[in-house]
Amino acid sequence: MLVVMQSHATEEQIREVCKRIESLGLKAHPMPGSLRTAIGITGNKGAIDLGILESLPGVVECIPVSKPYKLVSRDTKQEDTILRIPTPSGDVIVGGDKIALVAGPCAVETEEQCLAIAGRLKKSGVRLFRGGAYKPRTSPYSFQGLGDEGLKILSKVREKYGFNESLDLVEEYADVIQIGARNMQNFSLLKRAGRAKKPVLLKRGMSATLDEFLMAAEYVLSEGNYNVMLCERGVRTFSDFSRNTLDLAVVPAVKKRGHLPIFVDPSHGTGKRHKVLPLSRAAVAVGADGLLIEVHHEPDKALSDGMQSLLPEEFTALADEMRQIAAVLHRTIN
Amino acid sequence: MLVVMQSHATEEQIREVCKRIESLGLKAHPMPGSLRTAIGITGNKGAIDLGILESLPGVVECIPVSKPYKLVSRDTKQEDTILRIPTPSGDVIVGGDKIALVAGPCAVETEEQCLAIAGRLKKSGVRLFRGGAYKPRTSPYSFQGLGDEGLKILSKVREKYGFNESLDLVEEYADVIQIGARNMQNFSLLKRAGRAKKPVLLKRGMSATLDEFLMAAEYVLSEGNYNVMLCERGVRTFSDFSRNTLDLAVVPAVKKRGHLPIFVDPSHGTGKRHKVLPLSRAAVAVGADGLLIEVHHEPDKALSDGMQSLLPEEFTALADEMRQIAAVLHRTIN
Amino acid sequence: MLVVMQSHATEEQIREVCKRIESLGLKAHPMPGSLRTAIGITGNKGAIDLGILESLPGVVECIPVSKPYKLVSRDTKQEDTILRIPTPSGDVIVGGDKIALVAGPCAVETEEQCLAIAGRLKKSGVRLFRGGAYKPRTSPYSFQGLGDEGLKILSKVREKYGFNESLDLVEEYADVIQIGARNMQNFSLLKRAGRAKKPVLLKRGMSATLDEFLMAAEYVLSEGNYNVMLCERGVRTFSDFSRNTLDLAVVPAVKKRGHLPIFVDPSHGTGKRHKVLPLSRAAVAVGADGLLIEVHHEPDKALSDGMQSLLPEEFTALADEMRQIAAVLHRTIN
Amino acid sequence: MLVVMQSHATEEQIREVCKRIESLGLKAHPMPGSLRTAIGITGNKGAIDLGILESLPGVVECIPVSKPYKLVSRDTKQEDTILRIPTPSGDVIVGGDKIALVAGPCAVETEEQCLAIAGRLKKSGVRLFRGGAYKPRTSPYSFQGLGDEGLKILSKVREKYGFNESLDLVEEYADVIQIGARNMQNFSLLKRAGRAKKPVLLKRGMSATLDEFLMAAEYVLSEGNYNVMLCERGVRTFSDFSRNTLDLAVVPAVKKRGHLPIFVDPSHGTGKRHKVLPLSRAAVAVGADGLLIEVHHEPDKALSDGMQSLLPEEFTALADEMRQIAAVLHRTIN
Repeated sequence: MLVVMQSHATEEQIREVCKRIESLGLKAHPMPGSLRTAIGITGNKGAIDLGILESLPGVVECIPVSKPYKLVSRDTKQEDTILRIPTPSGDVIVGGDKIALVAGPCAVETEEQCLAIAGRLKKSGVRLFRGGAYKPRTSPYSFQGLGDEGLKILSKVREKYGFNESLDLVEEYADVIQIGARNMQNFSLLKRAGRAKKPVLLKRGMSATLDEFLMAAEYVLSEGNYNVMLCERGVRTFSDFSRNTLDLAVVPAVKKRGHLPIFVDPSHGTGKRHKVLPLSRAAVAVGADGLLIEVHHEPDKALSDGMQSLLPEEFTALADEMRQIAAVLHRTIN
Repeated sequence: MLVVMQSHATEEQIREVCKRIESLGLKAHPMPGSLRTAIGITGNKGAIDLGILESLPGVVECIPVSKPYKLVSRDTKQEDTILRIPTPSGDVIVGGDKIALVAGPCAVETEEQCLAIAGRLKKSGVRLFRGGAYKPRTSPYSFQGLGDEGLKILSKVREKYGFNESLDLVEEYADVIQIGARNMQNFSLLKRAGRAKKPVLLKRGMSATLDEFLMAAEYVLSEGNYNVMLCERGVRTFSDFSRNTLDLAVVPAVKKRGHLPIFVDPSHGTGKRHKVLPLSRAAVAVGADGLLIEVHHEPDKALSDGMQSLLPEEFTALADEMRQIAAVLHRTIN
Repeated sequence: MLVVMQSHATEEQIREVCKRIESLGLKAHPMPGSLRTAIGITGNKGAIDLGILESLPGVVECIPVSKPYKLVSRDTKQEDTILRIPTPSGDVIVGGDKIALVAGPCAVETEEQCLAIAGRLKKSGVRLFRGGAYKPRTSPYSFQGLGDEGLKILSKVREKYGFNESLDLVEEYADVIQIGARNMQNFSLLKRAGRAKKPVLLKRGMSATLDEFLMAAEYVLSEGNYNVMLCERGVRTFSDFSRNTLDLAVVPAVKKRGHLPIFVDPSHGTGKRHKVLPLSRAAVAVGADGLLIEVHHEPDKALSDGMQSLLPEEFTALADEMRQIAAVLHRTIN
Repeated sequence: MLVVMQSHATEEQIREVCKRIESLGLKAHPMPGSLRTAIGITGNKGAIDLGILESLPGVVECIPVSKPYKLVSRDTKQEDTILRIPTPSGDVIVGGDKIALVAGPCAVETEEQCLAIAGRLKKSGVRLFRGGAYKPRTSPYSFQGLGDEGLKILSKVREKYGFNESLDLVEEYADVIQIGARNMQNFSLLKRAGRAKKPVLLKRGMSATLDEFLMAAEYVLSEGNYNVMLCERGVRTFSDFSRNTLDLAVVPAVKKRGHLPIFVDPSHGTGKRHKVLPLSRAAVAVGADGLLIEVHHEPDKALSDGMQSLLPEEFTALADEMRQIAAVLHRTIN
């Protein structure tokens, strides 16, 4: 924390601020400048909210310096975290020189639908299957997912095709626990996921800063679960030509500050089928450790988000290109 | 819904789109223009997702026309909803020509703290007291509220000062159920609040559009609870001089589209003490039906959000001014 | 500027950063903390771009501390700037306890139109008239203003009604030079306005931060023209129910950091007629030193922005209310 | 344009709206729905602002349907525009299966600097050189570029290395006229560029929607200059970890709606050197027709934007990778 004093702050005011800082058990470092004095603070382990110093006489503002996250930071762990997700055909590796593809319908609709899509994805080499059982929807009148019934259908998909699933929040059935964008700051849920035994895929909130995103992951890690994958799925901006603005620069930024792997979801990130392929290419090129792609064999009959779902054959072509771009970066899809 | 065709769309393509629309049980209204044809759709009661038409050959885009909310709309109920919140000193009325002031600390910290603040607010004429028992915080290492213990403290405040409380999510203790910004799209919570017997104060999410805000209220109303108060508390934008950007224009916008009353929270909306008074004035002037103000008798010792809390005497001055501005608009604070 | 080092930065790296800082003629203040070292820098008068230190080994980031503006800052001038705009009926005062109302059509269309509107505004007590002669429009096919012809019409309005005008960029005709939002960072224009003899009304750019807004004013002041009025007219955000998001909290923020008066333009800030009245009330309540209101006697025939123009009689009612709200704040409209 | 009526609008009100539409020489198409009536309008060639219909009794809102741009639209020209920029070593082709790399320093500082950088870029195969002579800067106290002197230096670079330059706004010296983000809506400048004989590189404004971006290009085309290249350079959002948010999805969006080629500027789009390489990869992968990369041989001595400049050897490695990614998409760098 740095406290910036007014240019006309008195010596007395500066002393008072320092005294207050010391009274909190911290160390004050006054730095007299040509225009004004700034006071550095060291010794705060994150527990003390120093913003209140801003209301002391002579203070202009308080500037936070230390990043608030710890366990997710490269300060704590310098090398990349590499996750292994077990599947019947061997572990899928996420991170390092491996890239993972997760595909499937936005929502589980029927057993027939899931088996039809899963069968085709299997042939494209996909080893991680996704399908939403509980669908949070903006409108109470829209299809809300099949709920528990959806979970049972996913079980059958796994049985038949040896797939792993990525479900919403259901540890007992799922192999990966996905926490959606709207729940990124549902802190009790994050803590519960932190006590789960399964890897967690944490999607960035629609208006989450990078710090908030990493702090949400910190909640999970701080409860003991270190197997966290982040996921960029687009943020909300003024730009109105697509549903969200896919913020791909967050991929190198996440990797600079922390050690966790990061996915990209170009389906939700763009909301339009014709943008999924180019943004998937860009996501692999920018360094993502995995992609989440919505696939539906009959997108015009999909109960949710049909507009952004690829056809299975479009996905096959995409997966093929991803392999080539990954190769340029000396990585492989697995 | 309006389907806009490409300028070089063929007659055949236009016919195909119309056929598809009719096959869904809806009515198609083709409108040939000088440059292109647009096709209006009527008969959709909101259940059918028509975005998928966008992928048909010759279609440029689909433009939604009907607003998705119903029960919150002025189409359903033309006159303003006026709520009554029972207190020992008689009902506090929200809406119409009445404005409500809710004040108290950000977080319940100790019994002494709450009683000290409540005692002073009582003298300023405040009849609704607020205090958070469960505090969602960005960092897992910050103070998270007292939890159930906080609820018991609030009970004592009520007993002693005849206050009503505004708690987070705890129907059995609270007189008003507050749903915070981070939970605005926690749909299962919205539905549960819709089955509660208490009025609900629903805060706008940090990046919620007006439609999403009203749709969140629709979730509550659709379960049978019509006693909903909305609350603007600032949205997230590029503008970095304050924690959030208080979007006061949402007040007349909410009132034009719907019939529910709307509060403003200038404490969270600005995050800085010196902005609370001017923005409170502006909130009453723009037509808000109530204010939510954080007050702390020792803000520099507050465990959360001390930076934005007023001193009790500052609040008294504020309440006084609010009465005068309300009078210009022919309204009264109660 | 504060340089934050990595937690595992070596002593050698810290020394190197300090050496580099000293080599630039500045002073380095290393502050070893429990987690990491930060290095404060003093002595920079703003001319040296220190961001480059971020690329030195062991550095996490550079945090700017000093605000870049000087002449507009309260550090330079503690008391409010109060401007006098001469009119035939005596000076209009902007700032301090005085509030100014500026009204008129978005665009000068014809002499008849201007005289008709001006005649009615005169009766409402308006002393400053506005009308755009040059209209920047998003589309090349929209009405672009009358240009020089518009200036001559405004001259006649002044002659007949003793009004002062607020024109775009035309020093020789105008009494106030208005720099529109799209030109807020047209730096050569700002410098030219800084050498003009007339007061300048500088509108905030659509995505300008507070610092950028004040820096734009700094350009004008740095050339010798200290008569600058700022103007908030809405910023661009994700919020899509109105054309722009009026950021009223910028009013107290501008007044805390600097000494210049600030106007609010609720017509452009909202883009809808029914929002102009409530947001005008809010603007006066929040502490604005003036309002810019678009008025048209036949808004449905207006060549631009008719949707947001008030009728003259609506304006009269508005002006009346503004006087009452100003009185609550111990200010007067002049 | 579509006019949406209130659900309780009367027959009379609907008739009045239709009458008003017909009185403007347009055709009204009323569509009675189950909940409300909507009225389609055809025949508007873009010159009539219909927003004003929103103020008629019984109208909820007006929804624009037709896109306002024409010459830049695929409706006008279905095939991609392919530009040729003449250089001593033959034309550089922009668009189709060719990708162009433009590199050079942010600002022209000295002749030695430019020649040093140009010499190294030449070896990397770069054929288009960039360097700013006039630098718009947020602060009046920052380096503002060398101006005319800079132009002369660039001439020497061309003479010596056979490069083409990309300058700001100086037709007589430049081979490409670059219009920067802050000038994207400087409409008089756009029109002047529209009468120039050189190709124009038009950068997206910091908060420009896609429609505004294309409309800015429309200004240039409407004056007769069809040789326009667009350029995404990041937009302003709440996301604060990088200077701007690079909106790569705009690349496929621009190509779907229009026929002009589009560049990406990852240097300004990210503002940090370590993000330039990954975002360059992503830009080529997403389908950009060219890249604009800042290169400096001594970035820590650069007078502007050193933080985002690559070293020449970093650029060489980047160019090499770009060729490989382009090959995956069956394109070549030229």
